[in-house]
Amino acid sequence: MAEEMQAVVKVRGEPNGTELLTVDVPRPGVNDVLIKIKTASICGTDVHIFNWDAWSANRIKPPLIYGHEFAGEIVEVGNNVKNAKVGDHVSGECHIACGYCFNCRSGLAHVCKDTKIFGVDVPGIFAEYAVIPAANVWHNDPALSPEICSIQDPLGNAIHTIFSTDVVGRDVAVLGVGPIGAMAVSICKNIGAAQVFAIGRKNTYRTELAKKVGADFTYLAADDVKGDVMDKTDGKGVDVVLEMSGNTNAVVQGLDLLRPGGTISLLGVYADKLTLDLSTQVVFKYATIKGINGRLMFDTWYRMKGLLKNERIANDMKTIITHNYEFKDFQQAMEKMRSGNSGKITLHVGD
Amino acid sequence: MAEEMQAVVKVRGEPNGTELLTVDVPRPGVNDVLIKIKTASICGTDVHIFNWDAWSANRIKPPLIYGHEFAGEIVEVGNNVKNAKVGDHVSGECHIACGYCFNCRSGLAHVCKDTKIFGVDVPGIFAEYAVIPAANVWHNDPALSPEICSIQDPLGNAIHTIFSTDVVGRDVAVLGVGPIGAMAVSICKNIGAAQVFAIGRKNTYRTELAKKVGADFTYLAADDVKGDVMDKTDGKGVDVVLEMSGNTNAVVQGLDLLRPGGTISLLGVYADKLTLDLSTQVVFKYATIKGINGRLMFDTWYRMKGLLKNERIANDMKTIITHNYEFKDFQQAMEKMRSGNSGKITLHVGD
Amino acid sequence: MAEEMQAVVKVRGEPNGTELLTVDVPRPGVNDVLIKIKTASICGTDVHIFNWDAWSANRIKPPLIYGHEFAGEIVEVGNNVKNAKVGDHVSGECHIACGYCFNCRSGLAHVCKDTKIFGVDVPGIFAEYAVIPAANVWHNDPALSPEICSIQDPLGNAIHTIFSTDVVGRDVAVLGVGPIGAMAVSICKNIGAAQVFAIGRKNTYRTELAKKVGADFTYLAADDVKGDVMDKTDGKGVDVVLEMSGNTNAVVQGLDLLRPGGTISLLGVYADKLTLDLSTQVVFKYATIKGINGRLMFDTWYRMKGLLKNERIANDMKTIITHNYEFKDFQQAMEKMRSGNSGKITLHVGD
Amino acid sequence: MAEEMQAVVKVRGEPNGTELLTVDVPRPGVNDVLIKIKTASICGTDVHIFNWDAWSANRIKPPLIYGHEFAGEIVEVGNNVKNAKVGDHVSGECHIACGYCFNCRSGLAHVCKDTKIFGVDVPGIFAEYAVIPAANVWHNDPALSPEICSIQDPLGNAIHTIFSTDVVGRDVAVLGVGPIGAMAVSICKNIGAAQVFAIGRKNTYRTELAKKVGADFTYLAADDVKGDVMDKTDGKGVDVVLEMSGNTNAVVQGLDLLRPGGTISLLGVYADKLTLDLSTQVVFKYATIKGINGRLMFDTWYRMKGLLKNERIANDMKTIITHNYEFKDFQQAMEKMRSGNSGKITLHVGD
Repeated sequence: MAEEMQAVVKVRGEPNGTELLTVDVPRPGVNDVLIKIKTASICGTDVHIFNWDAWSANRIKPPLIYGHEFAGEIVEVGNNVKNAKVGDHVSGECHIACGYCFNCRSGLAHVCKDTKIFGVDVPGIFAEYAVIPAANVWHNDPALSPEICSIQDPLGNAIHTIFSTDVVGRDVAVLGVGPIGAMAVSICKNIGAAQVFAIGRKNTYRTELAKKVGADFTYLAADDVKGDVMDKTDGKGVDVVLEMSGNTNAVVQGLDLLRPGGTISLLGVYADKLTLDLSTQVVFKYATIKGINGRLMFDTWYRMKGLLKNERIANDMKTIITHNYEFKDFQQAMEKMRSGNSGKITLHVGD
Repeated sequence: MAEEMQAVVKVRGEPNGTELLTVDVPRPGVNDVLIKIKTASICGTDVHIFNWDAWSANRIKPPLIYGHEFAGEIVEVGNNVKNAKVGDHVSGECHIACGYCFNCRSGLAHVCKDTKIFGVDVPGIFAEYAVIPAANVWHNDPALSPEICSIQDPLGNAIHTIFSTDVVGRDVAVLGVGPIGAMAVSICKNIGAAQVFAIGRKNTYRTELAKKVGADFTYLAADDVKGDVMDKTDGKGVDVVLEMSGNTNAVVQGLDLLRPGGTISLLGVYADKLTLDLSTQVVFKYATIKGINGRLMFDTWYRMKGLLKNERIANDMKTIITHNYEFKDFQQAMEKMRSGNSGKITLHVGD
Repeated sequence: MAEEMQAVVKVRGEPNGTELLTVDVPRPGVNDVLIKIKTASICGTDVHIFNWDAWSANRIKPPLIYGHEFAGEIVEVGNNVKNAKVGDHVSGECHIACGYCFNCRSGLAHVCKDTKIFGVDVPGIFAEYAVIPAANVWHNDPALSPEICSIQDPLGNAIHTIFSTDVVGRDVAVLGVGPIGAMAVSICKNIGAAQVFAIGRKNTYRTELAKKVGADFTYLAADDVKGDVMDKTDGKGVDVVLEMSGNTNAVVQGLDLLRPGGTISLLGVYADKLTLDLSTQVVFKYATIKGINGRLMFDTWYRMKGLLKNERIANDMKTIITHNYEFKDFQQAMEKMRSGNSGKITLHVGD
Repeated sequence: MAEEMQAVVKVRGEPNGTELLTVDVPRPGVNDVLIKIKTASICGTDVHIFNWDAWSANRIKPPLIYGHEFAGEIVEVGNNVKNAKVGDHVSGECHIACGYCFNCRSGLAHVCKDTKIFGVDVPGIFAEYAVIPAANVWHNDPALSPEICSIQDPLGNAIHTIFSTDVVGRDVAVLGVGPIGAMAVSICKNIGAAQVFAIGRKNTYRTELAKKVGADFTYLAADDVKGDVMDKTDGKGVDVVLEMSGNTNAVVQGLDLLRPGGTISLLGVYADKLTLDLSTQVVFKYATIKGINGRLMFDTWYRMKGLLKNERIANDMKTIITHNYEFKDFQQAMEKMRSGNSGKITLHVGD
């Protein structure tokens, strides 16, 4: 096996601090696996690290190989590993949980108090090889391409958010039409949502993408969304709001669109504070607000595997992956992602 | 308005006891509506009454206008009626509930202790006009044809059964491929079931229909179903069984196909007794068995309205309605239904 | 039957605008019942009306008989009434729902869009007789006193809030220790909550009352609640927060005490706006926020009936009713309620 | 540390095949802990092994140290163990799960396909020392005695069964009043069940015990249970049946007592076959039947820890432990257990 590899490293805490370097191939511990990466995909979190914003400056300790969305093949396993073997085609859950705290033992491992995320807190997968704990390994359906397998982390976010509510046969508003918003639109429509209203801020590239994968109606923030939604729902409002924009104005808009007794689930990261009139917006409305992050380990993954057997869903995911770059062109890929004129972007790392 | 009308009446308690007669148009009470029937559809229950089997002999008191599945237009309303008006396009929930017992006040009106079913306990809708309580009225989506609207009662049964479980992204076995079984297959696939295994007894007309509306795999009772299902589910078994055949052998088969921790929901009417080894088939398997009947009033109806906005589902329903007869040809329609070589059969009553 | 009666009437929109007047006994419509009131109890809403605050000025149209919590005996029923008869001992759900909208037909009648509340929007029960719709009648357990029966409306609020979460065997913080907070403390402890932390603002009369009915630990707002709660929950935080104070600072405190994955349910009416950092307080915490009002019609009432069979709970309710005034001393009762040095206050109206 | 220890060993596959022997103290593997047993308690399963019935003959491979309910102190830990240390006071979940199959990763580890039970499939804890996997360790509340800690396995069974239903404020029938039935009665009453009907077969010792820990009404199989239950539930029937007798006649009786829409959960091991009329007993009744075994790992354990903070529950458990024998008097303890004239029986092994 190779002893050196190419890796995307945040070498310095600054906007220009990312470099493609030659580094040692990492060695797996007794409970780990070593994976040859085939495809990686770029998350909004990676853009934050690339840009070196306030969140990154606070959380990331350079030098760090970042990236956490991938598909690959196992090339070595630790002595204590029983659930994986060399040659397995896998992706991985990026939350490394302790396994023994209250959350881990109550079905909430994704909010384990001591959780570490690879590509954020420990070395990630923007590299030719990567080590992850065997407990985080997910075996991929051989029928799926590495590109689709590599986006299961964000698709899992979307599915986790959707299944925190009840969308089948219901009217749904999806706020925010970035890659995860588009995935949510597709899943909602493909599991029988009555009407999906997809609302972007200003980028028509992305509302168009939402439309391609099934949105019944798309809007920009400046449109009269409320009037139209009320009209199309017989004055009831939507049953479910999926907030995926990270914009607090969208949360306020979502609560306004929501019917009495409905649920709004929040996947975004919100830079601004939210101000609420709890009585009218929540209490008298009998509304439920849910904060969502990560994926249920591994209920969400199993449900995702089942959903991806559906050809319409798999095809929509292909549509949502709008660009595929060679690994060496990482900087270009990041620039494209930052432009907003893309869906999901994958990187071809190896075969 | 007309004072007389044509109606299908069980006049005598015998197999040849059904006649098309001219009778008085019924008069609505203060809490009732009078409906001009456009389309009626034929339920298995109607076949029982037509055949005059043991169940019918015990329950039905001739003379009785039977039938309970319909779509029509309101032509008169009682003085106390607030939720419906002349000209409304409606169908109706056939369970007449008291509204005040524990069940009615706990979201279980469909199992109200004093429930009466129209077309069974009180006069039904195989007629040019029919009276039902305003509380039972369901307003139809104007985008749907009367044929599709008329089958919401059995489609509601299928949806109620499906939503007593968790099929999205899961493997599902549907046992029994009559009209409701076919509806269940379509809904499961259209809401994202991973794989649907449809199992009939011996009638290939109906397994073919199940295939047309989305079954991934179809079987007859004589096939090696277990081996194939285990193979296709990585040895796990199906997550959910929907038993819609009314055959106790199918229940046993369903429990055998079910994975540990799975759910089997039973919609059938079972003439034979079932013998179970509770320890191995239920307790150690951590299985859940649910008896289902009717539809949630009106949660199931709202969800159905949302699902029918989905074009694929609406089209499948058209496929499942294999025959449409003129009202006067009622006897022929019943003969076709009895043959088993049909899906759902509707009757064109008026315009 | 008497033709005139004594009633508490808001005659003028001002703080001194409440008078005890002689008025006509109301007449029931066909769907109504006439009730001879035995006991009424005073709600915070009644204090708002008495005080004539901003909310009242906006909502109440004098002259109005107010009050909505009661126990009494039916003395007359309308022609169309089937679920009640003269001599029945009853209380009543104060939300008058239309019965036919989406909410009413989906188990959410308490948030019916056209809901009217008696004692707020239509005449109430601070009177010797009152008319309510038969649909709102609740038959009381004959084993219970009229005093306890009269407080089922607020007790139902508390139970509805508690059952929107999962408190059995869990750690619970109750914020706000007015009468409903005290009821919540009692119910939580009597259904097996692990530890109940009751937090008041500054009134020790009420934290003492909370202690009497089972709070494991009581605090005032100035105390170091966080440190103590974390210590007593092994650093985990509480599983459930029941916010019953109507104070937005308490909401912030509640979110701070809540463990990852926990639920905070809000029963209060919040005069101030709430400002949240959604990312840290909700999203990364995987928290659920539920707005609660009213009672499930009638699931909450049935559960309450079952809980009140428990002697410990019934005794706690007696403890929580700290004062009982004669009807004629209504003004004194209101003054006592306004002082904060009371639990629940009942009025003896008739026998 | 000692190198030899006393242990209860099934040495031969026959009724007289149990002996108290001196054997080597076992050695923990890297992922295991070695525990000094303080208290063990006797399960019905142990009686089966002692008696050497058909089930035992099929499952158990002598020689085997049996027993699986205990409390003790950790005296050694494997190199890879992170969640436990020497000196910890612990009990243990007896199901050893693989951790990686669908069930294990879906919150259903207790029905892991490769599950092994210590004291059944691998060496157990009727001994001075025992080895279990660290993953199975449960840290006990220091406020509880070793006797109470040792019965958490069966108490967990009872709690798991209860929480598969909804008993708070509801009417419950508990069928079977052995130790687990008595535990169920206590928990139901202490979490606010409205009325608990406890039904034994013929042993008044045990119905008396059920009464002591809170049963509102007790019956023997020969009594007119149905008439009395219907009378006391206003003709409705019970909302929940907890079947803990392992007798199929009791299952039939339970379904008969159950209200429409109710749930019956089955914890028993059933030697006889059950014959059902599915239509009347399940389908038209809208009944749910749940098979239960084991405990949720570890949701049930956390809830149990919370419930045991309740003094009434802890005291009831003391009442249910009717006998405590010295370890050397194991044979006498088994004889007492077989007599039926006991509640739970514990063995004092060490300090």
